[in-house]
Amino acid sequence: MKTNLTRRALLRSGIAAGASVAAGGTALAEGSPDPLITETQDWASYTGDAVDATPYGLPIRFEADVIRRNVPWLTADPISSINFTPIHALDGTITPQGCAFERHHSGAIELAKENYRLIVNGLVDRPLVFTYEDIERFPRENHVYFCECAANTGMEWAGAQLNGVQFTHGMIHNMEYTGVPLRALLEEAGLDAAGDLADKWVYVEGADASSNGRSIPMEKALDDVLVAFKANGEALRKEHGYPVRLVVPGWEGNMWVKWLRRIEVSDAAVQSREETSKYTDVLEDGVARKWTWVMDAKSVITSPSPQQPITHGKGPLVISGLAWSGHGQITRVDISKDGGMTWETARLGKQGDTKALTRFYLDTEWNGESWLLQSRAMDETGYVQPTKDQLRETRGENSIYHNNCIQTWALTPDGIAENVEVS
Amino acid sequence: MKTNLTRRALLRSGIAAGASVAAGGTALAEGSPDPLITETQDWASYTGDAVDATPYGLPIRFEADVIRRNVPWLTADPISSINFTPIHALDGTITPQGCAFERHHSGAIELAKENYRLIVNGLVDRPLVFTYEDIERFPRENHVYFCECAANTGMEWAGAQLNGVQFTHGMIHNMEYTGVPLRALLEEAGLDAAGDLADKWVYVEGADASSNGRSIPMEKALDDVLVAFKANGEALRKEHGYPVRLVVPGWEGNMWVKWLRRIEVSDAAVQSREETSKYTDVLEDGVARKWTWVMDAKSVITSPSPQQPITHGKGPLVISGLAWSGHGQITRVDISKDGGMTWETARLGKQGDTKALTRFYLDTEWNGESWLLQSRAMDETGYVQPTKDQLRETRGENSIYHNNCIQTWALTPDGIAENVEVS
Repeated sequence: MKTNLTRRALLRSGIAAGASVAAGGTALAEGSPDPLITETQDWASYTGDAVDATPYGLPIRFEADVIRRNVPWLTADPISSINFTPIHALDGTITPQGCAFERHHSGAIELAKENYRLIVNGLVDRPLVFTYEDIERFPRENHVYFCECAANTGMEWAGAQLNGVQFTHGMIHNMEYTGVPLRALLEEAGLDAAGDLADKWVYVEGADASSNGRSIPMEKALDDVLVAFKANGEALRKEHGYPVRLVVPGWEGNMWVKWLRRIEVSDAAVQSREETSKYTDVLEDGVARKWTWVMDAKSVITSPSPQQPITHGKGPLVISGLAWSGHGQITRVDISKDGGMTWETARLGKQGDTKALTRFYLDTEWNGESWLLQSRAMDETGYVQPTKDQLRETRGENSIYHNNCIQTWALTPDGIAENVEVS
Repeated sequence: MKTNLTRRALLRSGIAAGASVAAGGTALAEGSPDPLITETQDWASYTGDAVDATPYGLPIRFEADVIRRNVPWLTADPISSINFTPIHALDGTITPQGCAFERHHSGAIELAKENYRLIVNGLVDRPLVFTYEDIERFPRENHVYFCECAANTGMEWAGAQLNGVQFTHGMIHNMEYTGVPLRALLEEAGLDAAGDLADKWVYVEGADASSNGRSIPMEKALDDVLVAFKANGEALRKEHGYPVRLVVPGWEGNMWVKWLRRIEVSDAAVQSREETSKYTDVLEDGVARKWTWVMDAKSVITSPSPQQPITHGKGPLVISGLAWSGHGQITRVDISKDGGMTWETARLGKQGDTKALTRFYLDTEWNGESWLLQSRAMDETGYVQPTKDQLRETRGENSIYHNNCIQTWALTPDGIAENVEVS
């Protein structure tokens, strides 16, 4: 690089820039282009790839690390395993299906549309079997919703365990679903036989070997649950339940049954494995919290974060992250640089949909300070995301599921962020 | 299939169902499951794919036809070619990057982030060079916008040409972009040198061999144009301009320069090839309409359509399609079954974002009638999508670009839809 180039501090706030490259761009010497340009980026003198090369486009090879990752030691066998969305590398709110986290209880099965059947039975007037084509004939809706595994952040109860936001918070995705309200299919089968609906349930199962059965109160089933067949416009991918999955807005991901096979109306919860020995929270006294379906308000800073250090030097810095609430819209996110002593209100990327991811930003300056970075979400019910200490006070330290506490990243003077705990 | 199964007409409206399979599902014989289920979909007795199999998920093999397609005869060489989004097979509003249409003027080039430079020069106080990292340090925004090629539907001026909505209307996509307002970079370079901004322009160029240069009035450049680096949350794919493209909301796709390389502030439009001999509309008197940047309100029915016939028999039918306007929000879409003589108002899937695709549905009945299906969009300015005859009255028949007329599909009693013209 030429040494006679003048540099300019872009800083709107008047703070002097000390970095060797100003964030606002390097001055362009008039009549004498920066050799960085002529050496590395001459106007392309070749023709690029023709359109036939990519009938279905894939990420460019430079982004080959932006993939779902698992933690091999987390489950006994890869068949019953989990992987994590690369949220450290994403921005905006939509999660592409290709990198959206997975959790299978007996692997991802392959089920063709023409072989697909959905049974609605139990306390209904007319037990019915729906083909895929039948489902497409009911009025459809489009909604963006987040899906978070109840075990997301679960390893962190015991302290700071995993050094990467993909691993601590990546069991979440956010897609635009197209589907039919479950209500429409239940009404088609007729609910007169069920009598008073206030105390009735639906039991939902998948076609995979685990079946992953869950009981859902009728009130929720008739509210906003979708029988979905598209995500982000296109067919569900195999590992997201092709051709049909349940979408249970704001509720834990385990209830979003994939390869949806059967819906049974019943007068009691089934008390299945997935809602008794799993997906419950054992308190200090040994009693398990149960029916903890709603995912409470939560947020996390995705950049800077352990997988996303600051590499651009001092000066302007964009802090970015995600917030969500199973109770509705996110109304505010605050950011602390000192471990929760003082807070600044972040800017929301756009007004979030209800029960959907909301992107937040804080446009700030970093001049090599050590920070204890935290974010704190608030939702439309007035609920405020708790600290880890607050959560432990009510739940003890035996829990795995439903950890929505404030996360802390320790930012060092060299721009590295580490997963730490503060109290 | 057992013959003693009773069937049920689901029809809410009381019209008798004549089809062999009722849309509302087949009755399930109690105690004796439908053999369709036991024969084709026994509860999965095998374990499916482990998570390691798909670190980046791809569409399931059954959806292998849901891809971008080109029309080989449309351009002289695949290098300067076009392909089309499979909008007949999509639902909702988001277009996944993997199947979003492409138009390259000299092929898709490969440009690494570390080699990326963006020049801002011309009538600015300080000509600047931005690295990719520099751009990430400015305040970001998230917006969903449609991008439509000005030539979308262009082949249809001369009459019904292409039998597939993917080919007649598929040069469009709709993604959630994350980027920095172009305004921020221009202000960083300083616009005092430009004097009165009312008559100034910016000229934008890409790093590919075509450079694809376009002049944009300063008013638009300072309004909602984004320098974008993510689409649907993740990095732009190579063929969508990785690492940085311009997003020019509501304006023709050719201005959305990919592999964005240079932005020059000038006191006049450059009158480049792409804004003189191309992307203008030659009227009957030989004079070309120019600076026709905004894509007027338009809509099309995607299902049923020539690539999406009705296969489920008579009874309930969901008619589905897309509407959009470069002037803002879609406020209403009407559907005609008789070639424009009578109209029914469609239901919007959700309130559309401004300058973004809006999904519409009409939940109706079809009992084997011959229909002339049309949709007609209206936007927040009160503009109503014109008929082809109305468009020809003002523009003649020489045009290729900016065809936003009402499209007609002729639906036959066997459920096939064909591209036809009515007047």
